[in-house]
Amino acid sequence: MKITYPLLLINFKTYTEALGNKGLNLAKIAEKIAMEYNVCIAVAPQFVDIKTIAENVSIPIFAQHVDSYEPGAYTGHITPESIKEAGAHGTLLNHSERRLRLDEIEASLNRCKEINLICCICAGNEKIAKALSILNPDIIAIEPPELIGTGISVSKAKPEIVKNSVESIKKINPNVHVLCGAGITNASDISKAIELGSEGVLIASGIVKSKNPEDLLRQFAKVLSI
Amino acid sequence: MKITYPLLLINFKTYTEALGNKGLNLAKIAEKIAMEYNVCIAVAPQFVDIKTIAENVSIPIFAQHVDSYEPGAYTGHITPESIKEAGAHGTLLNHSERRLRLDEIEASLNRCKEINLICCICAGNEKIAKALSILNPDIIAIEPPELIGTGISVSKAKPEIVKNSVESIKKINPNVHVLCGAGITNASDISKAIELGSEGVLIASGIVKSKNPEDLLRQFAKVLSI
Amino acid sequence: MKITYPLLLINFKTYTEALGNKGLNLAKIAEKIAMEYNVCIAVAPQFVDIKTIAENVSIPIFAQHVDSYEPGAYTGHITPESIKEAGAHGTLLNHSERRLRLDEIEASLNRCKEINLICCICAGNEKIAKALSILNPDIIAIEPPELIGTGISVSKAKPEIVKNSVESIKKINPNVHVLCGAGITNASDISKAIELGSEGVLIASGIVKSKNPEDLLRQFAKVLSI
Amino acid sequence: MKITYPLLLINFKTYTEALGNKGLNLAKIAEKIAMEYNVCIAVAPQFVDIKTIAENVSIPIFAQHVDSYEPGAYTGHITPESIKEAGAHGTLLNHSERRLRLDEIEASLNRCKEINLICCICAGNEKIAKALSILNPDIIAIEPPELIGTGISVSKAKPEIVKNSVESIKKINPNVHVLCGAGITNASDISKAIELGSEGVLIASGIVKSKNPEDLLRQFAKVLSI
Repeated sequence: MKITYPLLLINFKTYTEALGNKGLNLAKIAEKIAMEYNVCIAVAPQFVDIKTIAENVSIPIFAQHVDSYEPGAYTGHITPESIKEAGAHGTLLNHSERRLRLDEIEASLNRCKEINLICCICAGNEKIAKALSILNPDIIAIEPPELIGTGISVSKAKPEIVKNSVESIKKINPNVHVLCGAGITNASDISKAIELGSEGVLIASGIVKSKNPEDLLRQFAKVLSI
Repeated sequence: MKITYPLLLINFKTYTEALGNKGLNLAKIAEKIAMEYNVCIAVAPQFVDIKTIAENVSIPIFAQHVDSYEPGAYTGHITPESIKEAGAHGTLLNHSERRLRLDEIEASLNRCKEINLICCICAGNEKIAKALSILNPDIIAIEPPELIGTGISVSKAKPEIVKNSVESIKKINPNVHVLCGAGITNASDISKAIELGSEGVLIASGIVKSKNPEDLLRQFAKVLSI
Repeated sequence: MKITYPLLLINFKTYTEALGNKGLNLAKIAEKIAMEYNVCIAVAPQFVDIKTIAENVSIPIFAQHVDSYEPGAYTGHITPESIKEAGAHGTLLNHSERRLRLDEIEASLNRCKEINLICCICAGNEKIAKALSILNPDIIAIEPPELIGTGISVSKAKPEIVKNSVESIKKINPNVHVLCGAGITNASDISKAIELGSEGVLIASGIVKSKNPEDLLRQFAKVLSI
Repeated sequence: MKITYPLLLINFKTYTEALGNKGLNLAKIAEKIAMEYNVCIAVAPQFVDIKTIAENVSIPIFAQHVDSYEPGAYTGHITPESIKEAGAHGTLLNHSERRLRLDEIEASLNRCKEINLICCICAGNEKIAKALSILNPDIIAIEPPELIGTGISVSKAKPEIVKNSVESIKKINPNVHVLCGAGITNASDISKAIELGSEGVLIASGIVKSKNPEDLLRQFAKVLSI
């Protein structure tokens, strides 16, 4: 599954609205809109739903976290191999709701690279984003934690964070793709994000808790397909 | 899915030999033997495999861990609701490879009770087992960490731990079912465990890495069905 | 240094008001009142202040936490030996602001016993308190986390927690001394705590942030010396 | 207390040989040699010993770790303010025996800067060192964890790590001072480290467990004073 940019990456978190069949339905809507507008839309469901969604939709699927452990005697942990086997194409790492030790970020990133999983590492500010770009992840998502879930979009409330982060990450490592996230709820948040240099967005409640995710995704896809 | 005792609970850990289709096959073997001998055999697969196994076999399924979070904005965590939705009947907690804070054990246990998930809490010694029995979990599994994966069975190497733990747990809380684990590889380890008062065993590599899990499970089931 | 009951244990937390010389002064006030009323008052200063306070006052001194590590290559950790060498007589463990894994609580408690350090383990509710009493600590302090720092005292707001915890702990293990804490600000909170069976109180902001700690301690000591 | 380079930074870890009076004596030896050779030697004692050593020796003193918490209700944690008040001039952060979350490293570093504490952040490899240099710490210490405590010095066993790390850190951030560590036991390890561009060394067991730390420090100081 090829990931292309701009990328719309939907984090299902542990929301009831995106668990089980509801998550599968949301993934199917994402797939439908992705095909309709020829835009890359990826989903990050809960661990238990990865396999079913991977078997039923043809869009990129991310886990929300992986541990760095090798397969073996590590009861209760999430190996990169397990999410790969289930059909995931990549994973989030270091989300603000699941921050990691720096050595663990590096170890998990290396383990993912070994088995060809895409890593999207989250960063709460420009400095952290720059530091992470040294580790050469596929994607960095800038998400100021104080805006997550607020409906106040990072691209409008803190445009300089997005602009500066993109510029400084690309300067350090032009191979890294940069997304932004936090507070995104409408199409103009997204067009603003793209205008600021972001190669896509990481979104969660904005879609998952929307009354009409299909309509909203269609509006987003229109903006991204321009 | 009713859990009955004696219970044979197979922990798939993050072993390659029990991931994906291999895990499904092992679960099917467990189901076959369980029906053949009318013995309760449960499996604890990796998170990503819970749903597929639940859809394809009719034996009790445990997760290997859950977090205590409610559904919501908890990216990368495992809610009890997610494993329940996927078809799990219970979960391991506090395995020696995934030890937890005491307040988290209580919180996760309470969350599981709310939604009718069975909790099997692991304890490394008799004192911890007794302490945990106060929290009123469904099952406590005594596993001296130093024997896990060694092939030296707790029931033979440390029979007094099993015997004393069973007695002291039952004295504190007769509702708790007691399993033992660590180092179990053959049927005589299991008959010894039962003789010592254990209501079943928690086993991992002994089955998962066995060359012929079906044969071995059959021998175990025979002992347990007596 | 003998600890006697009723015990008034003052947790300095990381409050500025009890750091360095201010902490030493507060400890001296505690010592003065303890001698005046022949009541046992102990203090739990920050790690860096243990030695100076131990050298200058003759009352029991507790650390606020220890790790279970042996002396050795454990940079940045707190060994029981280090606080003992500095002059501490005991330590808090598992405070609501520093909760620990159950296996770590047991390991730290065992390490402290080896070198004759008194352990006061904190518990957020009766069930946890009962479970901890199985581990045979010297002291258990019941502190409902939701009342800590509120000025609403546990002994008045939740008298049944104190009463039931004392009774059920003593039933399981009569050797454990039971303190209560959270929200204690005046002498009547303390007399109520004692009336409910508590053998003393664990107090922090009530004393540390008081405008006149000496007056307040004197009032407390009067109640405790009856 | 001004820190100058080359810097010899001695980590006392939680070694018995450097606890209490033994730690004070070792610090006094360090001070004596530092004055004799006009070389900067700093010590990182256990938390409980910082104040006494700060009161008795005039060399820079580091804590081995700090938490990022503000002064307040954070029982059992180490605030930057507490080590500063005790007389420390700086702190180690993210030592291989106390690795931290990336967001915590940033937060602790910021907190230390606010109150003028020097931060020496440890990195296990070149990539991590480069990433950390973006955060603009005062010092980065490269220590391949696999060599720590082995007596096989990083400067001889992995000279390219030292050389490359120094070059790439300086390229990203010329303000960062670079130390190396792990396995250093004799003066030639240190001269090699300096030759490779390191501005000093971080050493622990090499000194602390030496039979004659004074002699050894004298040899080190000679090399560093050239």
